[in-house]
Amino acid sequence: MKAVYYQGNRTFSFEDAEPASPGPGEVRLDVAYCGICGTDLHIYHGAMDKRVKMPLVIGHEASATVAELGKGVSGFAVGDKVVVRPLDNRAETKADRGFSHICKGLKFIGIDSPGAFQNSWTLPAFTLHKVPREVDLKMAALVEPLAVACHDVRLGEIVPGQFVVVIGGGPIGIMVALVARAAGARVILSEVNAFRIEFARSLGLQTVNPGQCNLAAFCQEQTEGKGADAVFEVSGSKAAAIEMTNLPGIRGRIIMVAVHPLPVEVNLFQFFWKELQLHGARVYEPQDYEKAIRMIAENVLPLESFITKVEPLERMSDAFRELDDAPRAMKVMIKCSPN
Amino acid sequence: MKAVYYQGNRTFSFEDAEPASPGPGEVRLDVAYCGICGTDLHIYHGAMDKRVKMPLVIGHEASATVAELGKGVSGFAVGDKVVVRPLDNRAETKADRGFSHICKGLKFIGIDSPGAFQNSWTLPAFTLHKVPREVDLKMAALVEPLAVACHDVRLGEIVPGQFVVVIGGGPIGIMVALVARAAGARVILSEVNAFRIEFARSLGLQTVNPGQCNLAAFCQEQTEGKGADAVFEVSGSKAAAIEMTNLPGIRGRIIMVAVHPLPVEVNLFQFFWKELQLHGARVYEPQDYEKAIRMIAENVLPLESFITKVEPLERMSDAFRELDDAPRAMKVMIKCSPN
Repeated sequence: MKAVYYQGNRTFSFEDAEPASPGPGEVRLDVAYCGICGTDLHIYHGAMDKRVKMPLVIGHEASATVAELGKGVSGFAVGDKVVVRPLDNRAETKADRGFSHICKGLKFIGIDSPGAFQNSWTLPAFTLHKVPREVDLKMAALVEPLAVACHDVRLGEIVPGQFVVVIGGGPIGIMVALVARAAGARVILSEVNAFRIEFARSLGLQTVNPGQCNLAAFCQEQTEGKGADAVFEVSGSKAAAIEMTNLPGIRGRIIMVAVHPLPVEVNLFQFFWKELQLHGARVYEPQDYEKAIRMIAENVLPLESFITKVEPLERMSDAFRELDDAPRAMKVMIKCSPN
Repeated sequence: MKAVYYQGNRTFSFEDAEPASPGPGEVRLDVAYCGICGTDLHIYHGAMDKRVKMPLVIGHEASATVAELGKGVSGFAVGDKVVVRPLDNRAETKADRGFSHICKGLKFIGIDSPGAFQNSWTLPAFTLHKVPREVDLKMAALVEPLAVACHDVRLGEIVPGQFVVVIGGGPIGIMVALVARAAGARVILSEVNAFRIEFARSLGLQTVNPGQCNLAAFCQEQTEGKGADAVFEVSGSKAAAIEMTNLPGIRGRIIMVAVHPLPVEVNLFQFFWKELQLHGARVYEPQDYEKAIRMIAENVLPLESFITKVEPLERMSDAFRELDDAPRAMKVMIKCSPN
């Protein structure tokens, strides 16, 4: 079989490899598709070289079919369509308070251990969710990022009729906007990039460019002075860290989805004055995967146009370079199956 | 009757005044005691001169007895002991989402309209809470700050067995610590000032000086790696805005009680990584007043030593100056009754 290894220095090698036989409790998968995530680009840029043990097969937004079952695996059969929830929580302890998905010893599969950019992938069965037979495996590879959005919207406790602002229109931001809209919210997407604005509009989302309009005043005006019920910060920008507290109304909620690697200025006075709430949200829990699978199976969201391009495994190196040079793409998908 | 007017420039004038007859829905009170709040000191320092219309009688931590009832007032009788919840929400609108206590048009009585540092005070009846006859009126004047602490602990959703850190050991911080302890939490108070540390210890509170020990490591150690369940930020310091995210464990909660007038650096990554929550908490709601009255009536908390000194109205100017020069005091109380 073939596998692609990250070698550091913006380099991937396309190589022959041996499929790993599934041990007890494990399943060997024939990988179908795997999307390229922003995190994969960070790895490609060398930003995670301290964490990533090279050479490593990366990739964690995968769909697959079950190829072989290890001892003691039940609930799956050869040929089943599955997606992978790439969280290995086997190091979880009591100190993690039961929150397996963000336990301190969490290993993220595809970063801390081998990932999906290969023909064949062997994994613990507990990472798998079945996907209905009728679901296209390309669409199924969107379950992982969509589950992030489902988690964010669930923690945001979005209910019908709420006024929601999503700051940042990358793939996750737009998915959050779509999931919040499907939950019955009125959603405004704040984005400055012209391509992303155009893409969001093509999905029927209302967008605001905060470079061209006063977003806080706009929210006030649209809500008769109430302000937003919830704000999702998905941009990671310093400007957003300040603006996010100007948008919600009294007891409004901010959901922190973005990674702000360094401390940034935040207006804590607004938290006090309006009794705002801020909730961090990271990855997903099993119910978020089930929700995302259901949404894709029932075709609830206009997700097809998310897939900008599909490239075969042997072109992965080019796909990363092209995505990096011209980021006019939402999701580039790698076809990991050999034919 | 006598009243004390703030005249700007760290000056109070002690003057004769006419008691105001209660209009419809109003009550005239004989003021008993009124504590000096940190906000009163801010006013004295001139920091709120833009908001305070001079000359103004300030003061909002009052106990009183009912002296005269305006038309249409029910539920109160002359001679009743009362405390004042100094929030005038008559400008509340639908945009305030039902949160009267922090509505946009809120007027804070004693800042935006006349306060308690006078013999006789006329107020809308809806600001009053009755106090049981057996309660000492000096102790009743602690209800207002104690209600702040009750509000903070209620929004913090503190339950028995939780590990709680309170950052900042001024009067509100110590009251938060006491109320959280009464709710069944194990409480650590973080404070650097030697007088405050000593005072907190005299109440049986466990204190940590973060200048002398690594507070985050201490929390980890004391909770077997779990981290704090809740952190109350009551200090308003930049160091606390950074440290507050290091203390809670996964899905822990931070309650923002302090006023941070300017944006400060916050580690938003910790919110994402540990799915932390931040909740702002401001003033109080009626149920917090009822809780505080009950706690004082039932003598649940060791509050008597809070009252450092009692001064008559005519010495108010000196009391402010002395409090400012030598802040070795918790609560200085002004006796507002004429004899």
